[in-house]
Amino acid sequence: MHDKELEEGRALTPRYDANGLISAIVADEATGEILMLAHMNEDALKRTIETREGWFWSRSRKSLWKKGETSGNVLRVSEMRIDCDQDAVLLKVSVTGDGKTCHTGRRSCFYRTIALGSPKTALSFD
Amino acid sequence: MHDKELEEGRALTPRYDANGLISAIVADEATGEILMLAHMNEDALKRTIETREGWFWSRSRKSLWKKGETSGNVLRVSEMRIDCDQDAVLLKVSVTGDGKTCHTGRRSCFYRTIALGSPKTALSFD
Repeated sequence: MHDKELEEGRALTPRYDANGLISAIVADEATGEILMLAHMNEDALKRTIETREGWFWSRSRKSLWKKGETSGNVLRVSEMRIDCDQDAVLLKVSVTGDGKTCHTGRRSCFYRTIALGSPKTALSFD
Repeated sequence: MHDKELEEGRALTPRYDANGLISAIVADEATGEILMLAHMNEDALKRTIETREGWFWSRSRKSLWKKGETSGNVLRVSEMRIDCDQDAVLLKVSVTGDGKTCHTGRRSCFYRTIALGSPKTALSFD
């Protein structure tokens, strides 16, 4: 059931979902820390590849956005990878400005841990 | 436009998309390497939290699956985080068996790099 060209080819042929989107993981190029997860449509993917800066599609605002356009925290992309079935990309970046990626003022969006091993669902902060 | 309880609260209240899914990033707990990106519905998330093993929802097969059930490459979850708007989780894992997460036989699904800075869209392999 797997498509050999999709998985073993050298052509970028993204598999967009029903909404025309793929997932984009953003990691710090120096530390590997996961900073955020966002989505890209075809235009955002193209702009990111061409400009080496992170562009995304906002599902809530239904619009294209360049990360850092207002905050100054632009994502400079040094490496970009795509996964086996071409529906997710991984961006290794350095963040300009104050280096905070999350709109809450934190460096990473993943600032809360889920308690494991229990049906309770408590979160704790870093 | 931001929901304070969602972002600053201690309750796990995932924001599932129209298909009832959130994104799940899987990273190696020792090296930080990104291994795969998959999706979870409510049941997969609950099972992962309770069993500390990675469960997901397959969008193509439309079924719940436990990673490693057939391959032996189970994901043992040591840490689980959720992002600011609670629509993505990050799993830090160790992989049992031969340690290969990707169904193509590679350790990570992100084995191809996208050429940057050009409108051409070539991929190169690790």
